[in-house]
Amino acid sequence: MAFLNDNYLKLKAGYLFPEIGRRVRVFCEANPEAARRLIRCGIGDVTEPLPPAVIAAMHKAVDEMAGRETFKGYGPEQGYEWLRATIAKNDFPAARGCAVADDEVFVSDGTKCDTGNILDILGHKNKIAISDPVYPVYVDTNVMAGHTGEANEAGVYGKLVYLPCRPSNGFIPEPPKRHVDVIYLCSPNNPTGAAANRPQLEAWVKYALEHKAVIFFDAAYEAYIADANLPHSIYEIPGARECAIEFRSFSKGGGFTGTRCAFTVVPKSLNAQTKSGELIALHPLWARRQTTKFNGTSYISQRGAEALYSPEGKAQADGIIKLYMGNSDTLRVGAKKAGLKVFGGVNAPYIWVRTPKGVTSWQAFDKILDEANVVITPGSGFGSRGEGYFRISAFNSRVNAEEVARRLQELKW
Amino acid sequence: MAFLNDNYLKLKAGYLFPEIGRRVRVFCEANPEAARRLIRCGIGDVTEPLPPAVIAAMHKAVDEMAGRETFKGYGPEQGYEWLRATIAKNDFPAARGCAVADDEVFVSDGTKCDTGNILDILGHKNKIAISDPVYPVYVDTNVMAGHTGEANEAGVYGKLVYLPCRPSNGFIPEPPKRHVDVIYLCSPNNPTGAAANRPQLEAWVKYALEHKAVIFFDAAYEAYIADANLPHSIYEIPGARECAIEFRSFSKGGGFTGTRCAFTVVPKSLNAQTKSGELIALHPLWARRQTTKFNGTSYISQRGAEALYSPEGKAQADGIIKLYMGNSDTLRVGAKKAGLKVFGGVNAPYIWVRTPKGVTSWQAFDKILDEANVVITPGSGFGSRGEGYFRISAFNSRVNAEEVARRLQELKW
Repeated sequence: MAFLNDNYLKLKAGYLFPEIGRRVRVFCEANPEAARRLIRCGIGDVTEPLPPAVIAAMHKAVDEMAGRETFKGYGPEQGYEWLRATIAKNDFPAARGCAVADDEVFVSDGTKCDTGNILDILGHKNKIAISDPVYPVYVDTNVMAGHTGEANEAGVYGKLVYLPCRPSNGFIPEPPKRHVDVIYLCSPNNPTGAAANRPQLEAWVKYALEHKAVIFFDAAYEAYIADANLPHSIYEIPGARECAIEFRSFSKGGGFTGTRCAFTVVPKSLNAQTKSGELIALHPLWARRQTTKFNGTSYISQRGAEALYSPEGKAQADGIIKLYMGNSDTLRVGAKKAGLKVFGGVNAPYIWVRTPKGVTSWQAFDKILDEANVVITPGSGFGSRGEGYFRISAFNSRVNAEEVARRLQELKW
Repeated sequence: MAFLNDNYLKLKAGYLFPEIGRRVRVFCEANPEAARRLIRCGIGDVTEPLPPAVIAAMHKAVDEMAGRETFKGYGPEQGYEWLRATIAKNDFPAARGCAVADDEVFVSDGTKCDTGNILDILGHKNKIAISDPVYPVYVDTNVMAGHTGEANEAGVYGKLVYLPCRPSNGFIPEPPKRHVDVIYLCSPNNPTGAAANRPQLEAWVKYALEHKAVIFFDAAYEAYIADANLPHSIYEIPGARECAIEFRSFSKGGGFTGTRCAFTVVPKSLNAQTKSGELIALHPLWARRQTTKFNGTSYISQRGAEALYSPEGKAQADGIIKLYMGNSDTLRVGAKKAGLKVFGGVNAPYIWVRTPKGVTSWQAFDKILDEANVVITPGSGFGSRGEGYFRISAFNSRVNAEEVARRLQELKW
C-alpha cells in the first residue's frame, strides 16, 4: 500500500490565512450587519488596481496570443530573457555594488512557491535557522520536508533553531552563537515590519561565510523601503554572492498578488556540499529543478511585470506604494493614540502591535473582529514569539485605513 | 556547511527538451540558410493562437484588474470556485459515471508542476512503476526525490519498476506481476500516442485496488481522444475514486502552454498509509501542500480557462484540435509512405515512428535535422525502450505538416 509523507501530520492546524478566513466567514454568517462594515487588514493582500502601464502591456500581450505570428507557447522555464535582463539591470545595479547576471535571475509565479521549492535542491542534514516570529511558509515547508521534529504546544518544532525577534533587537535577529547551515531572513520583514540595516546584514553575511551557510533572503517587500540608508538587496553586502539566494516578488510592489510573477536570484558563485564534502554550485541545481518541475510563468503576467520597469510603470507603482505607506502612517499613529505599543510600518506595509497586558493574539483577533469589525492577523500565527502581538496590514484604501485607526481608538480593552 | 540534495547528481544530462533546443541552436547558427526552412515538430508545443472566446475573456479579466471594485488579489490557492465547479460539471459528468466534487478539483499552473509536486505528499518507501518510454518528468522527479538508485548507461534507474510499452501491447503496459505502490499512467500517451481502452484501465484499477496502490493518471491529452469508445477519465472506471489521482491540462486542448492553467483531481475517498499503517486521505494533504507552497494561478489565466467551456470556446477549441488531428493524419500517412513503421496519432497528437534498422534515436534526430531540417524528438529521450523510435508532434500548421510529410519521403536512410 502506498505510503504518505508522515511529516505532514506534524503540521499544526491549518495554514494561518485559511484559518483566519474560516473565522471571518463564521463571524460574517452570524453577524450579517457587522459583516457589511468589515474592513480587512489581515492577509497582506493589495487592494489597489494594477498600474495602467501594466494593464496596457497585458492587453497587448493578450492580443499577441490571438495571432498565429505573435502567439506564445512554452516560454523558457526560467522566464523570458527580456524580463530577466530588465530585472538584473534595474533591481541589481552595479552602481549599488549588487550586480547579478541575467541568467542568475529565475522568473517564477510567486515567492511563496520559490521559498518552499528551494528546499528541493538542499539535503536533509542541514541545521535550519528561522526567525521567530516568521512568515509561516518557511517553517511549514521545512516540516513537510522532514527537517524538524514534532511541535510542542506552543508550536515550537524540534530541530529548528529559532532566532528571537524582540523589541531589544529591533526585531532583526542576531547571528546565533551556534552553527547553522541554512538561515531564513526576511527584510523588510513580514510580519514585524522591521527592516535590516547594512551592519545587520554584514553581520549575517560574515556569519554565513564563516559557517559556509546559505542565507535565504526574502526581499518581497523591498519596494517599501523608505530609508535611503537601508540596503535593498543582500548583494549590496560584499560576500553575499557566495552565501545568499534572494527572493523578490511583484506581488506587493506591483500589485501582482492575483496576477502572479516573482523571481529568485541564485548567484553562480554560491556552493553547497555533497554528502562526501564535494563543493557544487547550486545554480545548475535550481535550473534543473525549475526546468523539470515548472513550465514558466504566464507570458501575459511576464509582460505585465516588464511594464513595471517602464518610466510610467515605475511612477504609477510608486504612487500606489506611497498610498499604502500613507495608510501605514495613519494606522501607526492611530494605534499609538489608542494606547498600544507599535513597531514597524516605516519601511514596510505592516504595523506590529503589542496586545494589551494579558491579552493573547487570538483573543485580540476575536475582540477586534467582534467589536471593531476589523480583521487583523494574530501574531502567534507567525510563531511562539509572535504571541502577544498582532499585525495590521496597510494594504487598503485611505478611507478604510482612517476608519480602522478610528475604530482602534474606540476599543476598550 | 550547507548540504545539497545529492539525488540531483544522479540525473542524466539535461532535461530532454533543453538538450533538443541546444542542438537546434547549434545547427541553426552553423547553417543559417537551412535554419530558415526549419520546421519544429519536436517539443509538444501548440502553434495555433488562443480561441477568440479565451482572448475576449482575458481582455475582460485584464480590465477587471484595472478597477478598484473589480480588482482581484490573492485568489483561493486551489483555484476559484467558479472554475472548479465548471470543470467538475463539464469534464466529469455523472452521465459518464465519473462525477467528482468541485472541491476535489485543484486548479494549478501546469500538469508538469503537479505531476512533480504530487510526490511531496507521498513517503519515500513506495515502490514506483513507470511506463517505458515515458514523459521524462515522472522519472526525473522521482530521481530528485531520492526514490531511485543510480542510472546505468542506458539511463535505467535502480529501484524503479519499468513497465515495457511495445508494439505487442499496443504501447499500453499491463499491470506487473509484482507489487508496486505507485503507478504512473499517461493516456492518451506522450510520447507513443497510444490511448488506453476501458478493459486496460479496468485491469489497472483492479490491480491498484488489490495492491492498495495509487495511480497517477495523466490525461493531459484527453481532448484528442477521437474514438467514442475510449474513456476520457479514469473515474469512468468503478473503483478509481479509491485509487487514482487524475491530472488534466488546458495546455494541449486549449492552447495554454504559454498561458498556464491546469488542474488535478484528488478524490476524497483516496487513502494512503502512514509508516505505522494508519489510513489517511490524501485530499487534505494535497490541499495543505497547495495552500502552503502555491499561491494560485493567475486570475486572467483562470478566466481564460473558464471561457474554454462556453459554447463558443468549446467550438473554437474543437476546431483547433481538428486542425492538429488533420496534421496527425497527414504525418502518419507521409511517414508510412516513406517506408517507416508508424504508431499512434489517432487519439493523440503524436506519431511514434520506428527508426530504420540500425539507426538510433539520436542518429535519426540528427539526420532529420540535418537533411530534412525538421526537428523531431528522439525516442530514447523518453526512456531506454524509446530507443529505436522518434516522436513527431502534430502541433503545427497544415502547410508545415504537409511539408514535413513530403520531406520525410525524400529522406534516404
